[in-house]
Amino acid sequence: MILDGKGLAKQNEITLKNRVIELKKKFGITPSLRVILVGESPASIAYVNSKKKACDRVGIDGEIIRLPSDISEEVLIDKIESLNHDDAVDGILIQLPLPKHINETFVLNKVSPSKDVDGLHTINAGKLFTKQPGVVPATPLGVIMLLKHYQIPLEGKYAVVVGRSNLVGMPLAKLLNDADATVTVVHRKTEDITRFTKEADILCVAVGKPNFITKDMVKPGSVVVDVGINRVGESLVGDVDFEEIKDIASYITPVPGGVGPMTISALLFNVLFQYEVKYHD
Amino acid sequence: MILDGKGLAKQNEITLKNRVIELKKKFGITPSLRVILVGESPASIAYVNSKKKACDRVGIDGEIIRLPSDISEEVLIDKIESLNHDDAVDGILIQLPLPKHINETFVLNKVSPSKDVDGLHTINAGKLFTKQPGVVPATPLGVIMLLKHYQIPLEGKYAVVVGRSNLVGMPLAKLLNDADATVTVVHRKTEDITRFTKEADILCVAVGKPNFITKDMVKPGSVVVDVGINRVGESLVGDVDFEEIKDIASYITPVPGGVGPMTISALLFNVLFQYEVKYHD
Repeated sequence: MILDGKGLAKQNEITLKNRVIELKKKFGITPSLRVILVGESPASIAYVNSKKKACDRVGIDGEIIRLPSDISEEVLIDKIESLNHDDAVDGILIQLPLPKHINETFVLNKVSPSKDVDGLHTINAGKLFTKQPGVVPATPLGVIMLLKHYQIPLEGKYAVVVGRSNLVGMPLAKLLNDADATVTVVHRKTEDITRFTKEADILCVAVGKPNFITKDMVKPGSVVVDVGINRVGESLVGDVDFEEIKDIASYITPVPGGVGPMTISALLFNVLFQYEVKYHD
Repeated sequence: MILDGKGLAKQNEITLKNRVIELKKKFGITPSLRVILVGESPASIAYVNSKKKACDRVGIDGEIIRLPSDISEEVLIDKIESLNHDDAVDGILIQLPLPKHINETFVLNKVSPSKDVDGLHTINAGKLFTKQPGVVPATPLGVIMLLKHYQIPLEGKYAVVVGRSNLVGMPLAKLLNDADATVTVVHRKTEDITRFTKEADILCVAVGKPNFITKDMVKPGSVVVDVGINRVGESLVGDVDFEEIKDIASYITPVPGGVGPMTISALLFNVLFQYEVKYHD
């Protein structure tokens, strides 16, 4: 069965749209997101455009701020600070990756934790790590929303996360652990990845390598979540060999149309999360 | 073979003592630690006393601040704030657990991140989670120091951590992952813990249950690290059935004399870490 992220994201947008209407009525203020895009990467342009469009669909005031790829760290931080101080801005997203001359961690930490909608500020990462409520990176949050929607049992199940990035692998592993799964994180230094993936009830893959996970690495009947989005020629493919695996998995996410739309959905929820924290305080 | 934490901690104290002498010479200031103990728990009294004694041995100015168990959160926080502002104080440790009427997370976050020597401030937890340099909880740090001292290979090895506390299990899993082990965290909701523990090259146990890990749960030739300290009658025992397992493990920590002394050793390193950050800035 397909874990239809695209479909769920659409459903979520109805919820989000209604909530935006409610919030506007209650507080008289439209939730707003500013997306900072540095440079001209076609993939990044496509991502920020779909975020902007999703904002439009649900009534969030979304705006893309485009900055040149040779921008200095200082000027970029000035821009972030001005958004931090702009009371009309509820969420700030820095589209990654940033150009090489910019220290990503340093810049991400300049976003006010209370406007961070990617959960990448160190204090928000710390909240996640220590199980305090807070904003959670959008992709892992989207994955969990998708699994919960399909009522995939997590408690006591064995989950394997392939990849250990700050953006996806590590926070996803933490969220699965919080949901009482038993979690193993495997990575490029793991000896014999298959030994782990083949045991997984839930297999989540975020490595950015086309068709990295093949049929022989997957347990029949398992749930396979493919976070990868890789451009191969004209088409997008995931990290999982979908055609081979779709018949042995009990559930699988397609690429595109699986985790991608859920990431955007989770981002919109994060914007409302920050908005609500702000106006309830 | 025994992983002799007591012995290594003693060796470390020579290093620490020399470093304190150097630092005092260089900056003219004695590194200092304030340990806040709320209440009368005999176990906590014993712990803070050994911390104080360890400070004395290496030349750190250590002082225990005892507060009554019925202290209000507000007064406790006032005390913490005054230590935060006291330029002569480099490290502040709040002995856990705190009485039930006090919000532990809230209070721990009142310690200045730059005087936190337990790595429990949310921002320090976030640094650990996102692999930024920073202060790391003492027990997991002590475990890693012990494994490294004995040159136990971690890269590519399979490590299982039993227990998922913010204080030990989760940060230890993260440090093992950072050392390129493949890590599984098991916990009370794990179905069939043995399935995981029995595969582990490195098994770390922090559950606080006497003899929780029995021989049949351990892989012959593995490295067993016992973080538990449980009082049974007059004696202290770990979470691991030491007598049963010592002959099948390649390395094992005793209790007492294993992880306990390493925790104190790591704490002293953390005090110097914060001192050096402060005076190098």
